Amino acid sequence: MVHTAEIHRATAGHGDMHDLTPELERLLAAGPVRNGTAHLFVVGSTAALGTIEFEPGLQADLPQLLDRLIPPSRDYGHERAWHDGNGHSHLQATLLGPSLTVPVRERRPALGTWQQVVLLECDVRPRRRTVQVTVMGE
Amino acid sequence: MVHTAEIHRATAGHGDMHDLTPELERLLAAGPVRNGTAHLFVVGSTAALGTIEFEPGLQADLPQLLDRLIPPSRDYGHERAWHDGNGHSHLQATLLGPSLTVPVRERRPALGTWQQVVLLECDVRPRRRTVQVTVMGE
Amino acid sequence: MVHTAEIHRATAGHGDMHDLTPELERLLAAGPVRNGTAHLFVVGSTAALGTIEFEPGLQADLPQLLDRLIPPSRDYGHERAWHDGNGHSHLQATLLGPSLTVPVRERRPALGTWQQVVLLECDVRPRRRTVQVTVMGE
Repeated sequence: MVHTAEIHRATAGHGDMHDLTPELERLLAAGPVRNGTAHLFVVGSTAALGTIEFEPGLQADLPQLLDRLIPPSRDYGHERAWHDGNGHSHLQATLLGPSLTVPVRERRPALGTWQQVVLLECDVRPRRRTVQVTVMGE
Repeated sequence: MVHTAEIHRATAGHGDMHDLTPELERLLAAGPVRNGTAHLFVVGSTAALGTIEFEPGLQADLPQLLDRLIPPSRDYGHERAWHDGNGHSHLQATLLGPSLTVPVRERRPALGTWQQVVLLECDVRPRRRTVQVTVMGE
Repeated sequence: MVHTAEIHRATAGHGDMHDLTPELERLLAAGPVRNGTAHLFVVGSTAALGTIEFEPGLQADLPQLLDRLIPPSRDYGHERAWHDGNGHSHLQATLLGPSLTVPVRERRPALGTWQQVVLLECDVRPRRRTVQVTVMGE
């Protein structure tokens, strides 16, 4: 059985983190798949998906960590060609990754209590984001 | 066809790495799916899954690398709220990721000879870990 | 429905990046699955998969970033055992990851316009790489 859906979010720009768990839970509770997997994929090259405890400390820590490891700079090859100031956004998004798969058990995501599914905006300006969701199983 | 299972491990604390490949191989050999994918997901926000050559050198190198990039510190926002000394554990686990999908061919994981599926404990104390396994295919 | 395939590439050594999107598009267009997911997995412990805007700037930026975060060195535990000069290759490949899942919609990968699926060689010498592709859905 295949169940497809889309999650849409307007982000506030670099470092803005959105908890997608409640929407994923609603979607799975109402869907046809009892046991299997839910795949989420953010379309575009400057945003990422991941799991994290969604609390204010880590909401700030993760973007700060990525900026320390992959700082904004005009020295990236991407900058020299495009001059759009988001070379670090591309690299941060590639490192964290656009794709996440979560187990589905009894129409719920099998996450830890302090483990949420989040969308992280890595681009330097507000963006409208689409997350493609594919639930498969029986 | 959907085949679900759980792998359980007791870890020794930060940097403890477990090779899950033998248990995954047994599970696939005995299961109903001949060709498809095996999805593994570690429940909780301070452990991660990945692939690596499982040998003593890299077993030490990977946790040391993560501690160099994301060092233990009391300065994380997460620390200021919770004081449990594992802010770096959360960030390391998020960066490496909780989710891994492996191809299944003829009831075996299609891995390289020196490529194993591992669980990495990122938390600062021993934990009991559950890995949800979902095998799908035909 | 399960559709399996292999993509083969000869790489030029460390930092060589290959755009797999055209081959993935052809494979999906000719395959039986209209909606679902395409899972790609590079066999071996010193190469990785990811998504990135495939342009010359970022093609250089990503390997340079990985070399800055995880530099070549003889000090890795892996080196002391094997002396093959690719300890950093293993760690870079583990961090970026060997596995990527992409949504399939109407027999096409649901990627952004500037978001390509790439294979990154992390090893220090040219290698022949096999990417296992598993397309599932209906």
